Amino acid sequence: MQVFDAIRTMLAVREYQDRPIPDGVVARILEAARLTGSARNRQGWDFVVVRDRATLRQLGALASTGKYIADAPLAIAVVVPENTTGYMDGSRAAQDMMLAAWAEGVGSNVVTSGNTPEIKELLGVPRERMILMLIPFGYPAGKVGAGRKNRKRLDEIAHAERFGQPFGG
Amino acid sequence: MQVFDAIRTMLAVREYQDRPIPDGVVARILEAARLTGSARNRQGWDFVVVRDRATLRQLGALASTGKYIADAPLAIAVVVPENTTGYMDGSRAAQDMMLAAWAEGVGSNVVTSGNTPEIKELLGVPRERMILMLIPFGYPAGKVGAGRKNRKRLDEIAHAERFGQPFGG
Repeated sequence: MQVFDAIRTMLAVREYQDRPIPDGVVARILEAARLTGSARNRQGWDFVVVRDRATLRQLGALASTGKYIADAPLAIAVVVPENTTGYMDGSRAAQDMMLAAWAEGVGSNVVTSGNTPEIKELLGVPRERMILMLIPFGYPAGKVGAGRKNRKRLDEIAHAERFGQPFGG
Repeated sequence: MQVFDAIRTMLAVREYQDRPIPDGVVARILEAARLTGSARNRQGWDFVVVRDRATLRQLGALASTGKYIADAPLAIAVVVPENTTGYMDGSRAAQDMMLAAWAEGVGSNVVTSGNTPEIKELLGVPRERMILMLIPFGYPAGKVGAGRKNRKRLDEIAHAERFGQPFGG
């Protein structure tokens, strides 16, 4: 899948087929994370790869906005230092993982309610680190639309030369 | 360019040809940002598109770690609310912009020293918003390698089921 097509069509997927993700695809998702650029190439990130059904169920039960993790065949916790660089680098790696997955037909979604003491304990995450995101992955259960998205218009978010001067193209 | 190839080969580019980026490519970069997913689809981001040479020179002079912005034909300031959601969403949009550019042969790099009062004033960014990143874009001046990257090994960053159990694949 071409880069722009992946970006254009990728949608949040919260319902998954009961079908495992092949090891090769999991490896490719992690490789995408590993190869992502980070500030000063610090790579201060860790990725906890969860495929155990019992753990996925517990994550679904514990993550207030991510019940559907329970039904995913895979979830990856993005663990970073709790600072702006950590947030930025972890988010860039997350986006690369999600795009790499999407190119293989695998949907995902970002769950940001994963940084609780209970979930950190479940995944063994050190106290001083932060679970920036939990990302469940899976083959979409329903038909995925052709990239119709509900987004602001470009002139609402893009500015020419100075903030407040709408970008005309 | 295929998604994984873009992720695999994208490198930070800090030296640019003296060659403008066509409007169609700029539009595609911005469209990539616009179509990025965000927490609760909030899209709380703004993008200031700078192509004016004098402004680019001033950005290069003012951004302590981004002198090379002065020589880029384009820089985009990613402006977000100063909170974790803002950091995450802005970084995801940034990654999509950089990948979309890379697929068109355009390199970029993240400059994180842009959130100063002087630069905010130069770009007219409201006081309560944050310049998360300045991203200069341009055609690479030198030959870009075939994706050789200096990165940690997978087992140093990926954990199986629990933090501390190296992921074996």
